[in-house]
Amino acid sequence: MTDYPIPAMDDVELVEVLRAVADPIRLQIVRVLADGRPHPKSMTEWGVDVQKSTMAHHFKTLREAGLTRTIVSGRTHEIQLRRDELDERFPGLVEALLRD
Amino acid sequence: MTDYPIPAMDDVELVEVLRAVADPIRLQIVRVLADGRPHPKSMTEWGVDVQKSTMAHHFKTLREAGLTRTIVSGRTHEIQLRRDELDERFPGLVEALLRD
Repeated sequence: MTDYPIPAMDDVELVEVLRAVADPIRLQIVRVLADGRPHPKSMTEWGVDVQKSTMAHHFKTLREAGLTRTIVSGRTHEIQLRRDELDERFPGLVEALLRD
Repeated sequence: MTDYPIPAMDDVELVEVLRAVADPIRLQIVRVLADGRPHPKSMTEWGVDVQKSTMAHHFKTLREAGLTRTIVSGRTHEIQLRRDELDERFPGLVEALLRD
């Protein structure tokens, strides 16, 4: 079974979060995830037109930067924004990313 | 006389702003500038320990990304955050950058 470790939110640095979202595709992924619900990795509604392997790279970058978690249930892999934790650690940041 | 062009705020993209602040030194500069007042480039209170040429590069990056303007008066060069414009274009973003 593949493991998807995430950093403790207290260890997450703002600069790393900014670096992660300073990319048009990853910003778009965060916006889709902003509802706080788990979304299947395979969903076609990401609104971006890139290879699966590219998406896998972006998902990994977001997870390692502390923005998301991966939920595995059977064959389904879902991505979820750590919205509550992010809002507590970086008040107003996620909200600001949605407003452009 | 050196010219310091800045992009129109309507042309500034959120991703470019995020890229500009996704750097520990530039984030620190933005925090110092967050009071909205002009600060002399030469000030020693930036709170960072880097070469003058490195600072010049960071100032340029911030200006070209749309975050700051340079005010030249005689020999004095001052940097100012385009705070009001940024707050209107990207509500809550600058505020979120100050909170870590």
